[in-house]
Formats: sequence, structure tokens, C-alpha cells
Amino acid sequence: MHRLTTLPNGFRIVSEPMPGLASASVGIWVTAGARHERAEENGIAHFLEHMAFKGTARRSALQIAEEIEDVGGYINAYTSREMTAYYARVLENDVPLALDVIADIVLNPAFDAREIEVERHVILQEIGQALDTPDDVIFDWLQEAAYPEQALGRPILGPSGQISRYDAGDLRGFVGGHYGPGQMILAASGAVHHDKLVALAETLFGQLPALTMPAAEPARFHCGERREVKTLEQAHFALAIEGPAYRDPDLFTAQIYASVLGGGMSSRLFQKLREERGLCYTTFAQAGAHEDTGSITIYAGTGAEDVAALANLTIDELRRATEDMTEAEVARARTQMKAGLLMGLESPSSRAERLARLLSIWGRVPSLSETIDKIDAVDLPAIHAYAERVASEARLSAALYGPVSAAPSLEALRERLAA
Amino acid sequence: MHRLTTLPNGFRIVSEPMPGLASASVGIWVTAGARHERAEENGIAHFLEHMAFKGTARRSALQIAEEIEDVGGYINAYTSREMTAYYARVLENDVPLALDVIADIVLNPAFDAREIEVERHVILQEIGQALDTPDDVIFDWLQEAAYPEQALGRPILGPSGQISRYDAGDLRGFVGGHYGPGQMILAASGAVHHDKLVALAETLFGQLPALTMPAAEPARFHCGERREVKTLEQAHFALAIEGPAYRDPDLFTAQIYASVLGGGMSSRLFQKLREERGLCYTTFAQAGAHEDTGSITIYAGTGAEDVAALANLTIDELRRATEDMTEAEVARARTQMKAGLLMGLESPSSRAERLARLLSIWGRVPSLSETIDKIDAVDLPAIHAYAERVASEARLSAALYGPVSAAPSLEALRERLAA
Repeated sequence: MHRLTTLPNGFRIVSEPMPGLASASVGIWVTAGARHERAEENGIAHFLEHMAFKGTARRSALQIAEEIEDVGGYINAYTSREMTAYYARVLENDVPLALDVIADIVLNPAFDAREIEVERHVILQEIGQALDTPDDVIFDWLQEAAYPEQALGRPILGPSGQISRYDAGDLRGFVGGHYGPGQMILAASGAVHHDKLVALAETLFGQLPALTMPAAEPARFHCGERREVKTLEQAHFALAIEGPAYRDPDLFTAQIYASVLGGGMSSRLFQKLREERGLCYTTFAQAGAHEDTGSITIYAGTGAEDVAALANLTIDELRRATEDMTEAEVARARTQMKAGLLMGLESPSSRAERLARLLSIWGRVPSLSETIDKIDAVDLPAIHAYAERVASEARLSAALYGPVSAAPSLEALRERLAA
Repeated sequence: MHRLTTLPNGFRIVSEPMPGLASASVGIWVTAGARHERAEENGIAHFLEHMAFKGTARRSALQIAEEIEDVGGYINAYTSREMTAYYARVLENDVPLALDVIADIVLNPAFDAREIEVERHVILQEIGQALDTPDDVIFDWLQEAAYPEQALGRPILGPSGQISRYDAGDLRGFVGGHYGPGQMILAASGAVHHDKLVALAETLFGQLPALTMPAAEPARFHCGERREVKTLEQAHFALAIEGPAYRDPDLFTAQIYASVLGGGMSSRLFQKLREERGLCYTTFAQAGAHEDTGSITIYAGTGAEDVAALANLTIDELRRATEDMTEAEVARARTQMKAGLLMGLESPSSRAERLARLLSIWGRVPSLSETIDKIDAVDLPAIHAYAERVASEARLSAALYGPVSAAPSLEALRERLAA
């Protein structure tokens, strides 16, 4: 059972012990990501995440790494569109140390000018690595196509040109505007003790002054396309279908719909595109949600000669979902979702992350049975109605990369779907 | 505590329960991988792994997927150079079902001619996807450079040209020659009961006739280079240093040496190449072992203008390791290795895989304390001596991909190291 404590300044601590574990996962999740950036500061949330590891008032970059690795732990961080997370996995007795290091790097980064120059180069290398990886490129483009000229559509890493000019003032500005105690959650699972975590958090985070963060720029899904022809082995094809936001009651429906469509080996897209036709190695569909919008993402990669067929077959599966969906498929998707949830809870890292995510969305952590009830409430008529809505509205965006010139236009795909 | 049972035909069952878990990881590990293939059948072990999911005498491809996913589980497989693994994660009560499906797909694949054609296309797509991913390409090339014209140096996926012509006879030939009970291990962890697993295994695998598998082609490390200049954002640079085989007492020394060099954020390569110089986003070193050989792999990616500096700095770190290695670094690497081991045991999937791997190498599962003793026995003088040997022997292979024309030749790197 999880426990939740809110400090007077709004900082929250949520934890759930896992009996029998010798290690713990502990981290700070901050409601600050790429979508909280202004256009001219795109990439700064991620730059900041990098700089956290480059030294504080008390610790050099090497000391940060050494203190955690001396006790056999590891520490890492990631930036998403709505959050930045700093987390560590350590043995039970080292939780106070890990929290001390995490608090230090989150609250006291030094922003040394020379270290900023070095890290700028590291990030430019990271951007280069992503640009060399079609599987990374395609999803950034899909996001851009669906949310053009909006914060939510901009890349997390930011554009190289802008990365080249950020300085300590930009980084301090973003911290000052976004890293308040009400924007932070300490989440932990495994070999943890809530009262001890709260005592540590009071010392480390209790004195932070509250901060009113401006609302993120609202997002509006757009039916757009980004396509770039390039000589690659594979034609990469990704679709986004407008979907529910975090708190939308339709989210579970959309997730089960996506699961039936492309959630596993028995899913429709896997069976049609891969098992029957041999058109692709990878294909999937999944529903992702943000604060105020969401989308179902569909992906498949194939050869140049098959990209038109693959795109049309994908749309045909979206249409067919309105016609012959079965109770057995919906029941299977529900079971997969519930079992996946249970298995995820058996890892301290994914359990801590889930606590932080749910608390951030709902202001509380819904119980497992509450979530399971919502999953069980999604029945065949609901999925059928959802599939009908997807087809009739045809709210699609697309990204295409590689030898994709033969692929139908977005308009043609939308017409085929709504026909 | 694990339990191990050997059936009269040589089939082995190894399992270790994890109290408190609701799910289990269970699989069959077969000592058959790319290095057991003749040159003219390269890729067949992996093709076979794919065909296992394409139907058996009793189940269609769809039924295989549905039976596991109906109960919320998942099933997957992988082929490495020395093993093929088929595994599932399911809730406790579904372990018998999962084992029945896995046994069926491993022992009774139908090899339907039409399904072979379809799957051939899927594998060609998988090869295309790998070729589009420099991070995949570079390590296949490194393996080829280090073991040229040897089974261990050939790609697991095989060459497209050969994939295009394999038929049911080729697949049956490989199964007949390699999939005997003495080559198979059933490994399981999580919510499992050893006696029940043994009873199931007796029914499913107990009647298999024993098989004498020819020894794999012996491997000989070669100091070779593969380099291809291509327009990419990053210059990818990978080195292999000849290292110990599985059972070589030096393996732990090599692993701790690799960890000090490039095992974490406090490692020498991470600190020098990334933290001090900002040359790369990704860099690491790790020791990998095979039956009769092994290698320490080092990787880094950087921009075209920095690839020569990066390659030389990497070599300089190998040299510096002979000079100023400290007790603190070695102690940290030992602690990281031990804590990593403990944390890995907290996941049923990695625990099952570890059981299978250790049993396959040693014919028994060494206890945790035995492994920890071996780690603790590696001291500074041992690491120092190992670093000296690496430098003086300079047994290196290299792979380079991208804008790499400015990079030094392998001979220049070897001379710089041994100088």
C-alpha cells in the first residue's frame, strides 16, 4: 500500500515498500518538460537535466558519479514533454545518500560556464545520434506534424542552432520558473520506509519557497504530414490519431482499442501486416496521453516497394475495426492490460515511476482495484463506438521517412478511412 | 535457492522461486546460435526462431499468440551467437500453459512453405531495419573484424542473399542437428514450483532422443579492421580487445577492468571523453565472453571533426590504465558489479536467464557467494597486470562507420597502445 505526504510548501512524497527487496528505486519527478518551454528556449529543459550532473556548489561532476557508484548504485535522468525525472537505484542503506545527491543536483546546479560549453557539445552529439536513428526521427516528426508550431510539437532535445547559444542565465531562468516544490514529487519503491523518506525530504526540500508555474501552452491536435524522402533500407511510416487526454474517461477505451489494433502478437496490425503479409518486422499501436490532448500512435517500417500497400492496409485495419471487432479480442486486451499492470508492479523502478505519474495527474494515487475496475468497464460496444469515431472523424497526422515517395498522401489516407 | 533436475535424456530444469511474486518468467534456452551454423547456413538459427512462432502441428501462428495473450502474458524469443531462447512471462497459474506453448513451438514447428515465404520477408525487413541503425551495424562489423571468416564473426540475422533461399529442409536440418534434450535448459523464476516444472518437463521433453551435437567451430581472435565512410551525423568508433572466454579465471578481472574503463558515469572513458571533452554522448566498455574466446568492447560516437581525437584519446586511456589505476576505482567497480548482480536478481526474467546461462557454462549454478568471492578476489595488482597485458599485447580489432576518414588506422592505434 502506498503512502503519500505533502509538506507545507507543497512538495509531495509518495512511496510504496516491496517486501523482500534489498534495493530501492528513488527519484524526483518535476512537472517541467519540453512543452513548458517557449519556442526560443526549446531544448532548455533537457539541457538543464544534463547540467544537473555537471556539478553543484558541493560536488563536482565526478563526485556526483562516484558517490552513487561507490555504493554500487546508478543514477540517471530523462526529460519528456511534460516531466523531467532524476532517479537512482541503490541498496536499502544508501537511500539517504541517493536522495541527498539527487536533491543537490536538482536544487543546486553550479552552471559553471566551462561545463556548459562541454555539455553543449555532448547534447549536439546526442542530437546527431538521434538524427542517425530513423526510429527516433520518425516519432519527433509525428509529434511535430500533429502539434505544429506548438510547444508540445517541438523536439525534446531542441534544435542544434538554439542549443549552441544557451547560457547559465537561460538555465537559471527555466529553473526559477519551473522547479518549485509544488512541481516536484519524490517517489520511491522497493526497500523504502515512508517516514524516513519524509524526514529526509523535509530537510532537503522543506525550505523551498512555493512557486506559481504558468500553465503550459494549450495543445491542439492538427491533421498534418511530414515526409522526407531519403535513401534508407526501410520506409518508416507513423500515424497519429487524435485521442484522449490524461483525465479523459475515454483514455482506457482508447488504450484497449490501441491494444486490439497493435498491442501484441495477436493484434490486428501484427497479424495482418507481419504474420499474413510479411511486410514489416516492427509494427505496433499504442495510446499516449498528455495533460490536455492525446494520440494513438501507429508505426510500421517496410521496403520502398511496399510502403503504399502498408499504409493502405493500416487504414483498412482502422476501418475493419468498426466492423468485426469481437468480444474475445476486447477481453484479451483487457486481460493484457491488467496483467501488464501487475507485472510492472513487480519492478521497483516502474512502480516508483507509476506512483509519480499517477500522483501528478490525479493529485492522488488511484488504487489498483479502481484502475482494474475502469479497465473492466470497457466493453465491446465502447470499443466499437470508439472505432466508429476514429474512422468517421479521421483525425490523423502522419510522418514518413526513407524511400516513401510511393506512399499515399495524408489526405488520401484520411479519405480512405472516412469513406 | 535454486533447484536443478536432469531428466534421463539429459534435459535440465533449473528454477528459483521468488516469494511475493504473482508472475513467473519461464523459458527454454537452447545451445544453438549463429556460431553453430556452417557458412552456407548463416542466419538459419535466427530464421528457425522466427518460424517457431509461425505454427505447429497443433497451433496456428494466431493461436500461439492468442493462447498466451488471452491470459495477459507475453511470449518472445531471441537468437544470440551461442544460444536461442524462447521465453514467456505469465501469471502463476498460467505457467503450465506457457510451457506447453513453448514446448510446442520449439519441438513441433510446422515449417509450412507459405509461412516460410512470409517470414522470409519479415526477416528481410528486420535486416533492413538493422542496416538503418548505425548502433546495430557497428557491432556486427566489429564481430566480423575480430573473427573474420569464422562462424563467430558472422551476423546473427544472416546475409539477405542467403535468407532468400532457405527452405523447410534447411530448417529441419538445423533442428535435427542442434535441438536435442542435452542442448536444452528449462529455466524459470518468480512464482514457480520446481516439482511441478519437472513434472511438466517430463511430459513435454522427457521422450526426446538424445543428440550428439558437433562442437562449434573454434574461434580465433584476429586483429582486423572494418571501416566504411558514409554520410552520417556521427562517426561511430568501436574497438574490441581480445579477452577471456567464459570459464577463464581472468574473466572477472577483465570485467572489472572494463568497468573501471567504461562501466558507468565515474568511469575513465565517460569522464575523459564526455565529461571533460564533450566529444560524445554515448561511450562504454564491457567484457563479453564466449565458449572459447572473449573480448572487451569499447564504443563511442562523435562528430566527423573529432573522430581522430576520440580514437587516440581512447587508446591513451588504455595506456593510462597501466599507470595510475587506484584502489578506489577497483573497489568501486567491484561494488558496482556485486550490487548490479543483486539488483538483477530482483527481476524474474533476468534471474531465469542467469540460471540458464550459468548452468549452460558450468554444468551447475554457482552460488551467489561463490560469485561474490570471485569478484572480491580481484584486486588492484590484478587489474594493473591486466591493463599492462592489454597494452603490451595490443590485440585490437576496430569497426568504423560514418564520417570516419580522419580516424587513425588500426595499425596506428595498436602502435600507440603498445608504445
